[in-house]
Amino acid sequence: MPKSQKKISSFAIGIDLGGQSIKGALVDTKGKIIKDIVVPTEGSKGPKHVIRVMRNLVKDLSDIAITKNGKVVGACVATPGLVDMKEWIVRIAPNLPGWVDVPLLKEMQKGFDFPLYLENDANAAAYGEFWIGAGKNVKTMIVLTLGTGIGGGLILDGKVWHGADGSGGEVGHINLYPNGIPCGCGNPGCLEAHTSAIGITKRTKMAIEAGEQSLIKKMVKGDLDKISPKVVYQAATKGDKLAKKILEDTGRDIGVGIMSLVNLLNPEMVALGGGVMEAGDYILKPAKDEFRKRGFKWLIARTKIVKAKLGNEAGRVGAAGIVFSMNTQ
Amino acid sequence: MPKSQKKISSFAIGIDLGGQSIKGALVDTKGKIIKDIVVPTEGSKGPKHVIRVMRNLVKDLSDIAITKNGKVVGACVATPGLVDMKEWIVRIAPNLPGWVDVPLLKEMQKGFDFPLYLENDANAAAYGEFWIGAGKNVKTMIVLTLGTGIGGGLILDGKVWHGADGSGGEVGHINLYPNGIPCGCGNPGCLEAHTSAIGITKRTKMAIEAGEQSLIKKMVKGDLDKISPKVVYQAATKGDKLAKKILEDTGRDIGVGIMSLVNLLNPEMVALGGGVMEAGDYILKPAKDEFRKRGFKWLIARTKIVKAKLGNEAGRVGAAGIVFSMNTQ
Repeated sequence: MPKSQKKISSFAIGIDLGGQSIKGALVDTKGKIIKDIVVPTEGSKGPKHVIRVMRNLVKDLSDIAITKNGKVVGACVATPGLVDMKEWIVRIAPNLPGWVDVPLLKEMQKGFDFPLYLENDANAAAYGEFWIGAGKNVKTMIVLTLGTGIGGGLILDGKVWHGADGSGGEVGHINLYPNGIPCGCGNPGCLEAHTSAIGITKRTKMAIEAGEQSLIKKMVKGDLDKISPKVVYQAATKGDKLAKKILEDTGRDIGVGIMSLVNLLNPEMVALGGGVMEAGDYILKPAKDEFRKRGFKWLIARTKIVKAKLGNEAGRVGAAGIVFSMNTQ
Repeated sequence: MPKSQKKISSFAIGIDLGGQSIKGALVDTKGKIIKDIVVPTEGSKGPKHVIRVMRNLVKDLSDIAITKNGKVVGACVATPGLVDMKEWIVRIAPNLPGWVDVPLLKEMQKGFDFPLYLENDANAAAYGEFWIGAGKNVKTMIVLTLGTGIGGGLILDGKVWHGADGSGGEVGHINLYPNGIPCGCGNPGCLEAHTSAIGITKRTKMAIEAGEQSLIKKMVKGDLDKISPKVVYQAATKGDKLAKKILEDTGRDIGVGIMSLVNLLNPEMVALGGGVMEAGDYILKPAKDEFRKRGFKWLIARTKIVKAKLGNEAGRVGAAGIVFSMNTQ
């Protein structure tokens, strides 16, 4: 080809639909973000409005692709809540007002000549981590994203595991303590209830209310509702015993969960991400120690327990990665 | 074709290698056993002897296939212990003396012109249940075989899930109580430690030793080492309160385990088999109730919790089914 005629690049569009903002990205085949656009969700205006915003975002990003001498091979929306993967309907998204049985794929596809896809946001983020993050050299991995709740998912033999009804991969809702802290899902003692930001906050508050001494009380000026994992982590770095114990217990509980997941699924890697993991080794070390103490001997050395790498980009990048995976199947 | 010339049937050979006996079967494409042969394992004579016995069994069954106007498309050995599915070596089989790093597939293949396969015995039994048992109309199911320990496995999208190193599907070693009864695997509180025959026996003994009144004490003539799940079940049928409570607690614990498995993998079905399940609804009902109480609302009605159907035949029939699945891929 003549030097002046550049090769056409393949791009995918990843959209991460959140309660506050919609993050869009034009992504190349290596996972590099070529262009990102973030817009407010304005969820209170209802599903139709949100879908219009997302369609405009896809349009804008595909127009940009043309200016970059690229071709959009598809777009994928990473959506919160329960996605029906047979009918391609968002059954319910608790953080988006009015989102009940929304035929999102059908609505999104209108007017675009490249294929659109849907994925649960936690699964998309897990796929991103697998595609170009911590798991880029493995085929089977488990991602635990420890935020307000626990997101993440299962990548089995290079594919997101959806289960029979699209709700597979709820890694935060394996049971940890049969009579433990009530979880948002209604069950007492899920991994999420004990080790997510909410779990850490709740356990810290309970300990201080029970009279345990801690810097934290002073740090939040006596307002225990201001406790967050960040405050607990800061207190731990200052040597606060209670804070260190809370984070260590969190890590140990995560280690028990990892043991169950590894014994059951035998992945090559478990990657831990999300805001809670900003506490780093205060959590990661006891998690690894507990897994090593409890796991099958022959799996301990073979299973990598690592920090996730992609942070907040995981959702939209993972969504774009899913588009590319559809094109190579 | 002329009437006298019968169509040649396809058969597979399934071998279930146990500590006491080796069960072989010639199986047709519908899962029907055409011929079964059972021989003693004589494990004390070492791996070479056991392999010779199994090779003779495969030879005998393939000779019988010819007399039935059939063609053997392959044979599969369901073997206990840890099977390395990359190197096709039995890494360790605790119930078979001397079985460490045995290159079983290579040894078995010698002299046969049809392909040989290996599978972990619990996975083979799970596959049998999927192929022609309780799960014959589903694609994704979990099998829990509650015997001395807990066997079973994961059938994901019609295939046995092996994980990265061949040890996936250890359904009995998800954690139930982080500080629970010590499990044979070294971890305290596995599902197996609490709900297998050993778990039921141990919990019953502990309760009686702690002074609880029960018919069981009389039934075993004061020798608490004679307690078994069968005795507990018999006592329950006679209205014994402790026995009923032990079985109910067992069922509830199984229900908690099912909840974790279903939330994580979203199968269509969970099938419960093994000797412990002879107690039927004394265990199955509380298991279902507990799952319904704890599981995700949208999955409760969609997930079938049932008794397994194949009993002791599951291993060899499942092994034969795996042979057929290899031929249709």
